[in-house]
Amino acid sequence: MITINENFIKIPETYLFSEIAKRVNQHKTENPSAEIIRMGIGDVTLPLPEASIQAIVKAAEEQRHSETFRGYGPEQGYDFLRNAIVGNDFKSKGIDIQPDEVFVSDGAKSDTGNIGDIFDVNNKVAITDPSYPVYVDTNAMAARAGEPNQHNQWNNLVYLPCNETNNFIPELPSEKVDIIYLCYPNNPTGTTLTKDQLTVWVKYAKENQAIILFDAAYEAYISEENVPHSIYEIEGAREVAIEFRSFSKTAGFTGTRCGYTVVPKSLFAFTATGKKASLNKLWLRRQTTKFNGVPYVIQRAAEATYSAEGKKQVLALVDYYMDNAKIIRTSLEKIGLKVFGGVNAPYIWAKTPTGESSWAYFDYLLKEKNIVCTPGAGFGPSGEGYVRFSSFGNKEKTIEAMKRLAE
Amino acid sequence: MITINENFIKIPETYLFSEIAKRVNQHKTENPSAEIIRMGIGDVTLPLPEASIQAIVKAAEEQRHSETFRGYGPEQGYDFLRNAIVGNDFKSKGIDIQPDEVFVSDGAKSDTGNIGDIFDVNNKVAITDPSYPVYVDTNAMAARAGEPNQHNQWNNLVYLPCNETNNFIPELPSEKVDIIYLCYPNNPTGTTLTKDQLTVWVKYAKENQAIILFDAAYEAYISEENVPHSIYEIEGAREVAIEFRSFSKTAGFTGTRCGYTVVPKSLFAFTATGKKASLNKLWLRRQTTKFNGVPYVIQRAAEATYSAEGKKQVLALVDYYMDNAKIIRTSLEKIGLKVFGGVNAPYIWAKTPTGESSWAYFDYLLKEKNIVCTPGAGFGPSGEGYVRFSSFGNKEKTIEAMKRLAE
Repeated sequence: MITINENFIKIPETYLFSEIAKRVNQHKTENPSAEIIRMGIGDVTLPLPEASIQAIVKAAEEQRHSETFRGYGPEQGYDFLRNAIVGNDFKSKGIDIQPDEVFVSDGAKSDTGNIGDIFDVNNKVAITDPSYPVYVDTNAMAARAGEPNQHNQWNNLVYLPCNETNNFIPELPSEKVDIIYLCYPNNPTGTTLTKDQLTVWVKYAKENQAIILFDAAYEAYISEENVPHSIYEIEGAREVAIEFRSFSKTAGFTGTRCGYTVVPKSLFAFTATGKKASLNKLWLRRQTTKFNGVPYVIQRAAEATYSAEGKKQVLALVDYYMDNAKIIRTSLEKIGLKVFGGVNAPYIWAKTPTGESSWAYFDYLLKEKNIVCTPGAGFGPSGEGYVRFSSFGNKEKTIEAMKRLAE
Repeated sequence: MITINENFIKIPETYLFSEIAKRVNQHKTENPSAEIIRMGIGDVTLPLPEASIQAIVKAAEEQRHSETFRGYGPEQGYDFLRNAIVGNDFKSKGIDIQPDEVFVSDGAKSDTGNIGDIFDVNNKVAITDPSYPVYVDTNAMAARAGEPNQHNQWNNLVYLPCNETNNFIPELPSEKVDIIYLCYPNNPTGTTLTKDQLTVWVKYAKENQAIILFDAAYEAYISEENVPHSIYEIEGAREVAIEFRSFSKTAGFTGTRCGYTVVPKSLFAFTATGKKASLNKLWLRRQTTKFNGVPYVIQRAAEATYSAEGKKQVLALVDYYMDNAKIIRTSLEKIGLKVFGGVNAPYIWAKTPTGESSWAYFDYLLKEKNIVCTPGAGFGPSGEGYVRFSSFGNKEKTIEAMKRLAE
C-alpha cells in the first residue's frame, strides 16, 4: 500500500499568504469600489533593471543559433555568474569565498528548504521566532519538527523569541542545538544584528559543533555601518555557516528567479561515528542529482546586475524602496505606533496600538482603511501583537496609505 | 553535533557522466588533435525554436515596464501555460486532465527526484533496470534504497530487468511494491511499451494500491501507432499514476529549463492507518513551500511551443534528430551490432559486438574511433554489455561517426 509522508498533513492547511488572500478577496467582494493598497506580501513592484533586460535579450539571441546555443549547463551555475558573485559580493569586501563554494539556484526559498536533504533527521533545529514560515514548514516535512500544538508550535523545534523585551536579539538556546536558522536583516521584523551580536552565534556554533543557516536575502538594504552584509565577515564563520542570497529583492527578480547559496569548503558536518564530511561535496551531490540549474538567459540577467550600469540600477531600486520604508516608519511613529526595522530592511514591524491581536488589527486596517498588511502571528507565536508593513509598493500608494492611517 | 544524512555517502562517488567526462578529457590530453564526436550525453544541439526566442524577447519587454512587470507568480505555473499544456498535450488527444492537475517546473529531473518528499520512507520501490540514474540515487538519498552491494545494487530496491530475453518488457515484480518507476519511451534503451503492455502495469498498481511514476520526457519521439504518449491513455491510470513531461528534448530546452508534472486529483495515497490523502494537495503543498516557480519569461517560451509556428518548429527538431536515429540504427546494424530503440526514441541501445563489457567497448570507441557513447552499465546492472548512442548530435558528425565505425 502506497503511504504518504504523514508529516505533510501535520502542517496546518492555511498558509499565511493564502489566508490573507482569502480575507482580502472577501472584502473586495463586499466592497467592490474599495481601493485597496497592498502592503502585505513582500513582492517587488518596480520593473527589472534595464541591464538585466538587455542581457536576457542578448542571451536569447545566442539561443537562436547553433554556434552559440547552450544546452545543459552546470547545475551549480555557470562560471561567469559564480565569478561575478564572488568578485562583487565577497572578494571586493575582503571576504574569502571561492567560485566553487557558490551554488546558483532559483532562489533562497528552494535552497533554505532543500538544504535539509543533506542533514540527518535527528539534528536539533533552532529557529528565531517570528520567522519566515518556510524554515518551520520544511523542517516539519522532513520530520525534524515533531508534533505541532494548538498554537502551531512544534515540540522538537527550539524557538528563539525575538521581541521588544530582548530588543529583537535572540538569546543563545538553553538546550544544545545543531542547526540554527538566522535571517538578517530579518524577515519579518526588519531588525539586524551587529557584528558583535553575530559573533556570539558563530562562537556558539563552533563550540557546540552546530551549523548556522544564514539567510541574507535582504543584505542590499543595509544602510548602517557595523551591520554585517555576510556572515563570513565574522571570523570563523567559514567553518560553521551556510549563507543564502537572492536576486529577488535586490534586483527585482521575484518573477525572474535567481539566487545563490554559499557552502564553504572548510565547512564540515559529521557521521554518527564522528567522521567529518564536507558539506560542499554533499550539496554539490544533492544539486547535481535533484536540480537542473537556472536557465542560461536568467543567469545572464543575474550577471548583468554586477555591470557598472546594473549596479547603478539596482541601487536605484533599493533607494526607492528604502524611501518608502522611511515614509512608513515616520508615519506610523507619528500616529503613535511603536515600530521596529525599516532602517536596514524593507520591512517595518509595528506593535498593534492597543494590544489587540495581529489578525484583529489586520482586519481593522483592511476593513476601515483598505490597507493590507501581514499579521505578525503568521510568522510564529512571538509575532502575535505585531503586523508587518512592506515597503515594496508604489511610492504614491504608500503615501496615500499613510495618509489614510493618519486620518 | 551536526550530523549528515549518511545515505548521501553510501552513493558511489562517480556519477556516470562525470566518469565519462574524465575519460574523454584524458584521451583529449593524450591525443590533442583527435576529432572527438560526442554521442554520449543526451543533450540537444539545435537552437531553441524561433517562436520561443520571440516569446522570451517579448516577455523581457514586459518586464521592462511597471505596468506589465510580473513579480512572484504561482509556484505551480501560470494559467496561460497550464491551459496550453492541457489543451495541446491532453484534451486534444481525448485525455481528461485539468489545469490544476498540472505543475510547471524546471524539468523532469527535479520532479522525479523531489516527488519522493511526499511519500513515506518505508514504501517499497521498483525500478526498471537499466534506468535513468536519478531514480536510484534520489531514493538512496531518501533512505528508501537500503544499502548498495559491490555492483551498486541496493538491497531495498526491486529491480525489474529489461533485456534481450524479455524483449525489454519488464515483468511484474514477484514481491509486492508500492512505487514503480516507468520511463517510456525508455531512457536509456529507447524501447517502448504498447498500450496493452502498459495496461498490465496500471492494473497491477490498482490491485496492489501502488503508484506508477511515469516519465514521459521522450513522448514527442513516438512514431508508431499503439505506443501510448501518456499513461493517461490507459483506463484507470488517473487513479494510479503521476506523469512527468519535459520541454528539454521536445523543444530543445535543456539550457532553458521547463517541464511539468501531472498529479490527477483522483489520485490518492494512504496514511499508515489507511486514511486516503490527495497527492495533488500534497504536491501543491510541497511545491508552494519548497519551490519558487519557473521564471515568467521561460514560461512564455514554453507556451510558445504550442503556437502554430512553435509546433512546426518543434516537429522539425524532432524530425532532425529522428533522422539521425535512423542513420545510427541502420549503420550499427550494417556493421553487425544488435540494436534496440531508435524508432520511437532518440536513443539507440546496442549490444557490444563480442560480449565485452560496456566500459571496454566505450574505451574502444573512444580510443580507436574517437567516438563517445554511454556505457550501459552506468544505467544499472542489466545495462552491462550494452552501450547507448544518442541521436541529439549534428547530422554531419553523426554520419562521420558512422563512417568511422564502418571502416
